[in-house]
Amino acid sequence: MIRPVRVLRVALVGFGNVGRRFVERLPGPYARVLRAAGARVVLTAVASAGHGRAIDPRGLSAAACLAAVARDGSLDDLHRGPPVRSTLELIRRAPADVMVEVTPLDPRRGEPALSHVRAALRRGMDVVTANKGPVAFGRRGLLALARRHGRRFLHESAVMDGAPVFNLLERCLPGLRVRGFRGTLNSTTGYVLSRVEEGASPADALREARALGIVEKDAAHDLDGWDAAVKGCALANALMAARVAPAQVRRRGIRGLSPALVRRAAREGARYRLVVRARRARGRVQVSVGPERLAAGDPLAGSGSDSALLLDTDLMGEIAIVERGGTVEQTAYGLLSDLVALVRPAAPTRGPRRRRTVP
Amino acid sequence: MIRPVRVLRVALVGFGNVGRRFVERLPGPYARVLRAAGARVVLTAVASAGHGRAIDPRGLSAAACLAAVARDGSLDDLHRGPPVRSTLELIRRAPADVMVEVTPLDPRRGEPALSHVRAALRRGMDVVTANKGPVAFGRRGLLALARRHGRRFLHESAVMDGAPVFNLLERCLPGLRVRGFRGTLNSTTGYVLSRVEEGASPADALREARALGIVEKDAAHDLDGWDAAVKGCALANALMAARVAPAQVRRRGIRGLSPALVRRAAREGARYRLVVRARRARGRVQVSVGPERLAAGDPLAGSGSDSALLLDTDLMGEIAIVERGGTVEQTAYGLLSDLVALVRPAAPTRGPRRRRTVP
Repeated sequence: MIRPVRVLRVALVGFGNVGRRFVERLPGPYARVLRAAGARVVLTAVASAGHGRAIDPRGLSAAACLAAVARDGSLDDLHRGPPVRSTLELIRRAPADVMVEVTPLDPRRGEPALSHVRAALRRGMDVVTANKGPVAFGRRGLLALARRHGRRFLHESAVMDGAPVFNLLERCLPGLRVRGFRGTLNSTTGYVLSRVEEGASPADALREARALGIVEKDAAHDLDGWDAAVKGCALANALMAARVAPAQVRRRGIRGLSPALVRRAAREGARYRLVVRARRARGRVQVSVGPERLAAGDPLAGSGSDSALLLDTDLMGEIAIVERGGTVEQTAYGLLSDLVALVRPAAPTRGPRRRRTVP
Repeated sequence: MIRPVRVLRVALVGFGNVGRRFVERLPGPYARVLRAAGARVVLTAVASAGHGRAIDPRGLSAAACLAAVARDGSLDDLHRGPPVRSTLELIRRAPADVMVEVTPLDPRRGEPALSHVRAALRRGMDVVTANKGPVAFGRRGLLALARRHGRRFLHESAVMDGAPVFNLLERCLPGLRVRGFRGTLNSTTGYVLSRVEEGASPADALREARALGIVEKDAAHDLDGWDAAVKGCALANALMAARVAPAQVRRRGIRGLSPALVRRAAREGARYRLVVRARRARGRVQVSVGPERLAAGDPLAGSGSDSALLLDTDLMGEIAIVERGGTVEQTAYGLLSDLVALVRPAAPTRGPRRRRTVP
């Protein structure tokens, strides 16, 4: 059977660890998955913070883009047409159907991702992002904007990379009400505490985590719980229909935890982890972040950079999803899974279908 | 907006712990969820192994069915029309659109569930089952039969109750290849080992598990790994496109485990659990079941009747889903989630949609 192939022109905004891994895999395994879904991706624009910007309506070569930044050169050399002076200008001019947004975030403001997403939706592009900022700071408004433009705003990899958390509830757990959740959502603190349990110093452990590419540009965002707070808001807003912003989160980081305490807990079979909690209280959803001692057997008590989310639901009790060893590989997969959702038509969420009946 | 409500006539086959919980919740929370999906359920037939059978085209009262079995009476008193001599006859005669199948299973043969599912599909009913037997012994054939009759065969709660395992891969992890999996899929052995860790004798622990309603009619099916083997095959066949039958599973149960060994492991932070494994070897999928010592932090090392499935995937690394404290409540929810899938149209899994493009 010959199926028409849809060409999906992609503008990639952000070309750090995740963006590069995504582009590396685009011609290989990701192309295979997209082809099976009926689409062929053409990369028509790439914007990087430190390595320039390029637009080419005929398609940019993945290898050339990667080579340009690998030798510390500039994407500008691959650009065709009048110069592009800013990322926002690139979003406005890119000949693309979808923007994939993976820039580093200021977790206190959700920028610049929030502005990028708005600009792309206004321009009539679909948006796929691994960025938690827009989800935490503006999900409701962005969904409304997307609807007005007949586009979609997808963000599965904003929390726990490509492990399904947003889609899990929407696609697999119909009718459930989430009463609250607990999660270990920050890989860096998980990794650091795990290495401290094994005897490493916090400073060494952080250096190792940085070498793995899982630490935020400013490590304080991880250690002081900002990353976790923003992810907690993103989840609360999406899964519990909350309207909570990171500034409202009661937040404590892991810097105050003594290594001796962490090691003693480990000897007793328990584990300290940075835990995000959300619950309904007096008609509102409250989100908090802080270190907690987790008993053995708790789904959140994973090792290293594992992350986990435990949902407390009305009809299905407690259910958890766990991602082992969060890497940029897994974040990049989340982008792919959203691209597949764009090409597969969405199932209407309501309404009966016609059927024949048994007499 | 007024939406047409579709009436979904249900024949319930099997009226044990799960069937009763399902019927209890049908008029309340489940009706709310189904109403939101555009459907109203009418229970038109119920078959029980020890308490008779009833058909009523006008609808059976949930309360009356529950009362009949609670006072050790018979469903026969609620029946209208010529007598029904067998469950298969009930399936052939029930004025129903969907059969919900929850009979106890002979795990060595997959019966009688397999015959029930075949009969219902041949008659043109959709089928929803919490039964692992048909999935392990005949999934491929049953899907083909369903297709021929334009019907669906759904079985989310066959493994890990209503926690999404089959749907997780299909709906949330597009394009992934499952290289193998590990799972703690049998609640009874999990509960027994957990209580033995705490000092209980295996016999007492089993008695407690029985009181919770999680033990198979014949406890040997749990303790000797039959239940786990059948579930492992169901998963391997569905998630890895295998063709493996329970008789081919290398299977060891937990009876040979000494309580002293289990307790010593627990003191060292580890846990013995009955683990199902599947992996590809020499072009085939091999499934095995046996007790394993799990390190702290392993997503499978949960407590009590927790169950977990860890998928090893090509593009997304390792990802696990955990259900805490498996109860009949959670199995019943799985039936509901499949009923919702029946009323919501399935998304076509391939093919491009039309869209406007950005110039």
